[in-house]
Amino acid sequence: MGDHHVVEAHEAFRALLVADGILQRTSVDGLYLRSATYEQVIRGVEALAHRIGVSAEETYEPLLYLPPLLPRSAFERTDYLRSFPDLVGSVDVFRGEDHDHTELLMLADEGRDWTTKLEPAEVVLGSAACHSLYEGMQGQSVGSQGRRLEAVGFCFRHEPSVDPARQQSFRQHEFVYVGTPEGALEHRDLWAERALNAMLSLGLPVERVVANDPFFGRAGRILTANQRDTELKYEIVCPITSTEHPTAIVSSNLHLDHFGTPFNITTTNGERAHTGCVGFGLERIALALLHVHGTNPTTWPDDVQAQLQQ
Amino acid sequence: MGDHHVVEAHEAFRALLVADGILQRTSVDGLYLRSATYEQVIRGVEALAHRIGVSAEETYEPLLYLPPLLPRSAFERTDYLRSFPDLVGSVDVFRGEDHDHTELLMLADEGRDWTTKLEPAEVVLGSAACHSLYEGMQGQSVGSQGRRLEAVGFCFRHEPSVDPARQQSFRQHEFVYVGTPEGALEHRDLWAERALNAMLSLGLPVERVVANDPFFGRAGRILTANQRDTELKYEIVCPITSTEHPTAIVSSNLHLDHFGTPFNITTTNGERAHTGCVGFGLERIALALLHVHGTNPTTWPDDVQAQLQQ
Repeated sequence: MGDHHVVEAHEAFRALLVADGILQRTSVDGLYLRSATYEQVIRGVEALAHRIGVSAEETYEPLLYLPPLLPRSAFERTDYLRSFPDLVGSVDVFRGEDHDHTELLMLADEGRDWTTKLEPAEVVLGSAACHSLYEGMQGQSVGSQGRRLEAVGFCFRHEPSVDPARQQSFRQHEFVYVGTPEGALEHRDLWAERALNAMLSLGLPVERVVANDPFFGRAGRILTANQRDTELKYEIVCPITSTEHPTAIVSSNLHLDHFGTPFNITTTNGERAHTGCVGFGLERIALALLHVHGTNPTTWPDDVQAQLQQ
Repeated sequence: MGDHHVVEAHEAFRALLVADGILQRTSVDGLYLRSATYEQVIRGVEALAHRIGVSAEETYEPLLYLPPLLPRSAFERTDYLRSFPDLVGSVDVFRGEDHDHTELLMLADEGRDWTTKLEPAEVVLGSAACHSLYEGMQGQSVGSQGRRLEAVGFCFRHEPSVDPARQQSFRQHEFVYVGTPEGALEHRDLWAERALNAMLSLGLPVERVVANDPFFGRAGRILTANQRDTELKYEIVCPITSTEHPTAIVSSNLHLDHFGTPFNITTTNGERAHTGCVGFGLERIALALLHVHGTNPTTWPDDVQAQLQQ
């Protein structure tokens, strides 16, 4: 019964967004065409997040805009396949000759699976913005000061849903630290605070909670419990379509040496680098704003509009 | 020898863009992380294209921002697989249980092809912006006036290259007409002229040429000849790394009923709709600007900067 109400609330919010021209549905759940109004909100949130980084005491490397794809070799090092196989998007391409093409088209014409004629591409869909950043540091030392990076781009997660806040293709704006364990912890805590304040400044009824990733399967249950026990993940949640199940709009994560080890990134003393990141979920923040303040951003409170100035 | 010089020119321009912080290379050719400077140029070109549409005599439906993915069912109707199988990016996902996951990880750990445990997703990577628009009109009549749409988003084409102007993941800004054959022809010609003027106003040494798509294989040679004979495709080309092989930065296409028929889109008299589109290649226009005016946009001619105002 509870779940039924949640689905109804998702569908009602989606219908509102469609009726007001914010999103246009496609034949696939979780995949939308977006209006210029929506896109301007996204860019406003992006500008806000960037300003927070610029005004921080510590200095971030220049903002990077990411493509929606990740090198397959980098993806395989992230170990994402072990924890979240059900969310992965792998890309296949055709490298055949004329006769292979003829066979492929025969399969397609007969309504059979033509993708059996394809091969894995050099790329996959990116699952998290920070995954694109570790490859460039592979085998390097980041020194005792570590490195601080900022990146924004499209991510993919295969979780078709009627909830407009759970899209298959969505943007993250991340601030990433690579360095010592203490530095990673400090980064996580600093940003959990900054992100909470930023979301409050947008008039969103948010709170910060200990959270866990949706680890897959039997082994995942242990990873989940472990992640919660050690408080490796915080989320800033906001009720969008449900107060009982608020939506995570920012997440802040400690990865320990989960990326430092496979990418062989070290600090000056040869220790494996620890990493941490905060990810602003741009689509979800935009949707939270549209839910709380209405679907016409020109009518939003002046101070909220000011915060979103590009 | 000629080809060798072209590759050297590509590599030299890519090296310049990397040295000046515009692009950051990844381990995959044609896949880049992008600087904020680059992104602002892209957004400037996007704003210029949008203004041209707004000031046109005919009226366009509200601009849509596309996700980098396309519903598989819509993709299969485009017939892209027949003409350009080598450029396609199909997405695979994992829908298995715990034991399938165990097998998948065994394959991955042994360095074997773990993607054999995946299945086709509900989505593929989009190859052209306009492909995302026909699904919404499926089975409908667009009336005698037709419909005029505007959309921008990431496209994928599997053509790894050292040429920074040939990226695997790039953005198109399209203006699309759906209606009568005469309307489609008029749309194509109007926009070929507008786009040429816009590119000239940016100080780019462009010209308009009859062109063809890179149709695949033996059958493709006939399609290519046919497309050129009937002048279905115009391109606006600009020398970026080669005057002998200038780069297409805008393309304007007549599709005849290539989309109208499979998507069953009609005009008032029940005739199959014809379509036409003009696509501004945002990455390529940005790179042409960076090549012609230098990698620091604040030093570009005032009138060019004014044209790119957002």
